Amino acid sequence: MPHISLPEGLPGISSGFAFRPETAKPMRELAHVLLHGPNSLSPAERELIATYVSSQNDCYFCQTSHGAAAAAHLGQNAETVIQVKHDFSRADISEKLKALLVIAGEVQQGGKHVSPASVEVARSLGATDVEIHDTVLIAAAFCMYNRYVDGLATWQPHDDEMYRAMGKRLAESGYAEPSRVTS
Amino acid sequence: MPHISLPEGLPGISSGFAFRPETAKPMRELAHVLLHGPNSLSPAERELIATYVSSQNDCYFCQTSHGAAAAAHLGQNAETVIQVKHDFSRADISEKLKALLVIAGEVQQGGKHVSPASVEVARSLGATDVEIHDTVLIAAAFCMYNRYVDGLATWQPHDDEMYRAMGKRLAESGYAEPSRVTS
Repeated sequence: MPHISLPEGLPGISSGFAFRPETAKPMRELAHVLLHGPNSLSPAERELIATYVSSQNDCYFCQTSHGAAAAAHLGQNAETVIQVKHDFSRADISEKLKALLVIAGEVQQGGKHVSPASVEVARSLGATDVEIHDTVLIAAAFCMYNRYVDGLATWQPHDDEMYRAMGKRLAESGYAEPSRVTS
Repeated sequence: MPHISLPEGLPGISSGFAFRPETAKPMRELAHVLLHGPNSLSPAERELIATYVSSQNDCYFCQTSHGAAAAAHLGQNAETVIQVKHDFSRADISEKLKALLVIAGEVQQGGKHVSPASVEVARSLGATDVEIHDTVLIAAAFCMYNRYVDGLATWQPHDDEMYRAMGKRLAESGYAEPSRVTS
């Protein structure tokens, strides 16, 4: 049961967004820019970073919804999403993305855990400053979203079909428009 | 030295904001709503929550700038800020704020650490659902801001006068207007 009286029937972060539209607006916008806006990292790569961090933070709603969005971007390839969560070093992804996931994992532990060596490895594999910046910020932002979703004890149904539909919608439309995300 | 080529001469989060204005905009807006917008929690109380979480995350820039903003709201009472960071149970603040700081500390550890018992204590001391929501979100958001500031290894000068001036400016104008915050 949620810690406060959240609107019923809305899963995960949607219930917090409906409860407090003033904070929902910038939180949606940030997710949209980071995960759906123009970027040299593909939407699939960015959703995989979000999924991995959410998995490390043990947030069921975020790792499942963003995992579904990543799978949708990858032509419904759920296997890669599972690999990234369980052992990304053996996943079917680029070496550059693996290096960025190392950085994301360091951010998840704490900002000071990010090492110059990890950044150097990512750079040597072709990561740009913006890509490193966005990796740090996606990881940091999901340390917020995950804590928000679980810190309010939101309703997080286990319903694969619901998450698949949500992932498809997020992959197509992103995060900026409330009617698309919470409906 | 920062992990990426950030604009020089801008302390802490300002350098990340200048590097990537697209993500700065919603990040500023979120801070403005949470810390400066209309709220039954005073700006001082909200800045103290932000300061405490930043201190627990060991982020020098955020705990010092938001501590300075809290002190400015409290008539330059820096002693209360120090008390809150070191042992808030003995600080000269309300019992309700102490209960909210317990929740903020749980969020800092992870969303699932927030206990129904802590929420019940806060509620029994008069905390509303919106106040509990905003406490959870301020704490969660600073787990993002702190990781962003330290995860990029931003320049964080130790200059008490600079932080006092910044705190005064933030207390007066908030976070929404770039020219006020980064100048």
